This record gives sequence, C-alpha cells and structure tokens, in this order.
Amino acid sequence: MRATFMYGAGDVRVETVADPVIQQPTDAIVRVTRTCVCGSDLHPYHSMPSSEKGASMGHELIGVVEEIGSSVTSVKPGDFVVSSFAFQDNTCVFCREGFQTACPHGGWYGSPAAAGVQAEYARVPQADGTLVKIPGVDPASADESLLASLLTLSDVYLTGYHAAFMARVEPGKTVTVVGDGAVGLSAVLASRRLGAERIILMGRHAERTDLGVEWGATDVVAERGSDGVAAVMDLTDGEGSHIVLEAVGLRPAYEQSYGVVRPGGIISRVGVPQYEEAPIGFGSLFGKNARLAGGPAPVRAYLETAVQDVLAGEIEPGRVFDRTVSLDDIPEGYAAMDARDALKVMVRP
Amino acid sequence: MRATFMYGAGDVRVETVADPVIQQPTDAIVRVTRTCVCGSDLHPYHSMPSSEKGASMGHELIGVVEEIGSSVTSVKPGDFVVSSFAFQDNTCVFCREGFQTACPHGGWYGSPAAAGVQAEYARVPQADGTLVKIPGVDPASADESLLASLLTLSDVYLTGYHAAFMARVEPGKTVTVVGDGAVGLSAVLASRRLGAERIILMGRHAERTDLGVEWGATDVVAERGSDGVAAVMDLTDGEGSHIVLEAVGLRPAYEQSYGVVRPGGIISRVGVPQYEEAPIGFGSLFGKNARLAGGPAPVRAYLETAVQDVLAGEIEPGRVFDRTVSLDDIPEGYAAMDARDALKVMVRP
Repeated sequence: MRATFMYGAGDVRVETVADPVIQQPTDAIVRVTRTCVCGSDLHPYHSMPSSEKGASMGHELIGVVEEIGSSVTSVKPGDFVVSSFAFQDNTCVFCREGFQTACPHGGWYGSPAAAGVQAEYARVPQADGTLVKIPGVDPASADESLLASLLTLSDVYLTGYHAAFMARVEPGKTVTVVGDGAVGLSAVLASRRLGAERIILMGRHAERTDLGVEWGATDVVAERGSDGVAAVMDLTDGEGSHIVLEAVGLRPAYEQSYGVVRPGGIISRVGVPQYEEAPIGFGSLFGKNARLAGGPAPVRAYLETAVQDVLAGEIEPGRVFDRTVSLDDIPEGYAAMDARDALKVMVRP
Repeated sequence: MRATFMYGAGDVRVETVADPVIQQPTDAIVRVTRTCVCGSDLHPYHSMPSSEKGASMGHELIGVVEEIGSSVTSVKPGDFVVSSFAFQDNTCVFCREGFQTACPHGGWYGSPAAAGVQAEYARVPQADGTLVKIPGVDPASADESLLASLLTLSDVYLTGYHAAFMARVEPGKTVTVVGDGAVGLSAVLASRRLGAERIILMGRHAERTDLGVEWGATDVVAERGSDGVAAVMDLTDGEGSHIVLEAVGLRPAYEQSYGVVRPGGIISRVGVPQYEEAPIGFGSLFGKNARLAGGPAPVRAYLETAVQDVLAGEIEPGRVFDRTVSLDDIPEGYAAMDARDALKVMVRP
C-alpha cells in the first residue's frame, strides 16, 4: 500500500510499503476512506532533524473494517467506523474515568506500537476500545461534507470540545479562544454548544475568524502578545475571561492565556505544548488563583455522542476542511497548511 | 505600641512605633488579642536581604475593635473579631465570585497599604469586608484552645481548606497532602471534613504526622523526591492520587505533586510558590491531563461558616499551635519555627 513518511523538516514522502496485517487478536485492519493532516503534524514539519528512517505519519481516520482479530467483537468487516486518534482498551480504570489517553494498554498511531494512518490501510490496535461504528452511512455514496464532519471526530473537533469540557464551559461564561486554527475554531463551536455567553476569538486570519464568527464567536481580537491581552481586557471591562481555551501549543499562546484569564478562571490547553517549563508562580497563575487544565483529548469519551450529533445535522465541524488532496499529493497538503494557504487538508487515499 | 519588623534573613526585631489611627472612613482599629507567625514568614526569614528599613510583619489576628471609621457598619467598638489575612471590600465582582484575594480594593497586611499585625494594634482597611464577628465569646475569659482555633481561621486552617475546596475533594477520592507544616495538616483536616476516602500525608516529622493521622490521614509517607513518589504510587496500586494538595511552596514539592497525581487528577497549591517557572508540558501535567489549581486563599469566602464550625466544636484546628510567646519574644518564635522546634507559634501581645 501507499503510506506517508516524514524524513525531516519539510520533507514528506509517500512510499509503497507492505499492507498491514493483524498482529494481535485485538487488532482490526481498516481501509482508510479519509484521513487528514493535523496541526500537530506541523510541529515536526518545522523542526524534525533529517533522518534516514522516515517517521510514519497520521492519526485521524474514518474507514471500512476489512479484517478483525479473533477477539474483536464490537465491529465486523464491512462496518464503516471512526477511530479516535489514540487507541485504548476503553475498559481500564482511567478509560472509565474519561481519560482514555492515559490507558496503560493504549498508545499512539505513528509510534512503534502502530503505524501512522495517512495511508491506504491502518492496523488499529485495541479495536473494540478504539473504533466506533457510524450507523446508516455508506461511505461510497455519502456526501463529502458528511464524511468531512465525521473525520473531525477522530481528533480536531473533539480536541476543541475537550478544551471546553475540561474548562467547564457553561451558560453565563465568557470564553476566550487563543488560536484560529482548526482546533481553535472547533473550540469556538464546542463552547457555543455548551452555552457560553460570550466567545472572544484571538486570531488574525480573517477567512478563519469568519468561520469562527459563524460558529458563535461574538468578538474577534487580531492583536497578539500584550496588545492582544489589552484588547481582551478592554472587552471584558478589565476583568478578564472566565475561561481561556489555548489551541496553539506555543509558549506565547500560553502567556496570552494567563494574561487574559480572570481571577479564579480556567485556562484549558489542547495545543500540544512545544515547551516543558513555563510561568506558574505568583505573577502568572498562583496570584490570581487561575487554574490550568487540558491535555491530549480522550476523544473516545465523547465519540459516540458526537457521531449522533453529526448524523443529526446539529453540528457541521467538517467545515474546517478547505482542501482535499489525494494520498500521493499529501506533501502539497502539508505545504499548504504550513503556508496557511489551507486551514486543514483532508486526504482521499 | 510594640510591633514586629524584619531587617533581613534571621533578623526579627520588636520596636516601639506610633499607634495606628483611622486613615480612611472604611478603616477599623483592632486591639490584637492573638496573632501568630506564618510559614510564609519563614521565606523572607531565609532570604531577605539586609535592609536599613525593616519590613512590617504579620497578617493573622483575632482581636477587639477599638475604633471604627465613619462608614463602617458591620462591627463596632468592643466586638470580638477575626480578620482574614488579606483585606477586601467583599462586594466587588471578584469577591462575589469567591476570589476575595483578587479584590481590586483589597490588599495585604505588611504592605504600604496596611502595616503588619504582629503588633499590639492593627489598622484594618475595608473593615466591613474584612472583619467577621465572633459571637458569644469574651476573649478575656475564653479558653486558650478556643482562641487558638479561632486564630487559625485568619489564615492557616482556611488556607488548607482552600486547597481542598479548589481541588473538589469529595467522598471516594484519594488525596495526597505534600507537607506536614501547619497548612498541610489543616489540608488533611479539611479533606476529612469534605469526605475524602483516603488521605496520604507526605511528611517526615513524626510529631506532626501524628496529628495528621489523628485528623484523618490514612497513610504517612516519610520519603521525599522520587522515593516519595514511588511510595505513593505503590499505595495507590500504581494509579496515583486523584488529588494532591501542595502546602510547601518549594519547587521539589511541586515536582512531587505532578509525580503522584493520577491521570485527570488535580494538584492544588497553597504554599506560596518560591519559583515562577516550572514544568507544565507533556512530561509533567499535559501528558496525563493533570490539572493545576490554587492560590492565595480567599479566606473571607469561608470565614463565617468556619467560625460556626469552631464555636460548635466540630473542628479544633488550633491544635497546630504548639507554642505561645509574648510579642517581645516573637524573635524566638521565628527561630523555633525555622528550626522546626515549633510547628506554629501563637503570639500574645
């Protein structure tokens, strides 16, 4: 099959490799209907050292089950499914508590445990805990926009949702979303669903923030850094935002977050931090009793409900995709997202 | 009057200064019945550079109102009162939200806005928002242990309570308390009051952890650092603690905290951080969706209820005081706490 590898910053290649096979009785093989490029894929696209051995890429997919291991019971060949971007057994104590990304039997696509899924086929470990059936949809004839929305449930929409969920967004709250990428826009949509009274979107790409406004942002702040902080403080009568959803992962975005959070407020991060240390002392979080939440989204916790919401037409998160490429053209997809020519790129293997 | 000043690390002096007077219509003058030395006073006691101008010390007090400003209505001369360690108007939006330490009209004792209260008299700004009456107690004849417990409501017990409250301690939860100082022990007592199922106290002073056990700690871990983390992980079947209450303020205590917190768990800090930057990225908080809470306790939010709890005999937080000194002997009190000869020192002016 064809599959995607990164050999260093800016160097993405599609190569022919052996088709995946069942390795464990809990595995399934899925034929990928749609996959996509993630904002987090751009971090190695910027910084990965050159390597002779390519890194297997991709962690988002919808597809059709081709084959199952002997112990898999929840899906069968022919089922149309969505996979969470991490795999898990969905039965352990952490999974039951809603933190599936901490499952001790789980792991990540694109790791030694499972290849990346920007490919024609995927081996899905822990298939019973990882795959969710999409009932009543034939991927061969389904509308492209429906496929796009279902694909967002693999990661991007539910990552935005996780930010809002962990921050306890609810009616009456002012929410500031830092970042107008696909996760940030998803966080706007999720905050609106959870009843936020006011949603301030910090972003400076008008074609993106326009979608944010359509999805419920009440204010857009294009400034960054201290100017951006000042603008949000002005909008909130100097009080700051009850909730800040940080969807970037770079330290300046975190610094903006504690700049605008209200005393007693919550910063919820879902942009994968590209830093380890950052301010949390008296001058940043502690002095104003600001709280910090977030992490890799336990997508599986929210997946079944979200599939129903999409099928019922209540949300259309697939609108974050503004370009589709074939698998062989995925290097162009990476380049377009990196250049911000595309918001998010869907891939049709 | 006599009042306490610090002129540098280890250099505490009691001096005669002018009695305080009403400066604002919202002020009250209180004759101090009891004050005390705080664990946070030990930070400058270790590190304060030598200075010609002493720093005015102390922020905890119970006392009797001597005089009130023209706009004060909630207390009158002769009332026996407790003051929160920070002052606030208790009417602004942040106060109403329960984060009184962020009150824009508030501030700190021992700052240019208000002298420290390790003294015979205190000027209390924002008296209506800061002082709470203690009904039915005559300080001249009250039992010493009752005065001690009432004094803890000015800061130490309710700071421990704040840690537990912000971490949402509730039945079924495992709580680890880092630090066996007076705040840590208070956090144990508060966690028990809030229904914690299991309370692991990390501390290595047996006379202190013994009180912790009496107050509800189910396990004591004397090890620190990676050995301490391993011991807590063992006690929790490798899963970690739902809640960690950090009552030290030094970076190793924070590092222990993220070492033992369970995926999705909460670290709540009330030890004033003696650091600004610390790890919060994938390897510490983010990777396991651990949350961070805490800050200067908005004691005023909890004060009325706690006064009732003490008067009803439901809690006896004053047991953290194991020594009482006169005001002139307060330098010995600092030294005893610093040497860990005393857990917490009460001062009788």
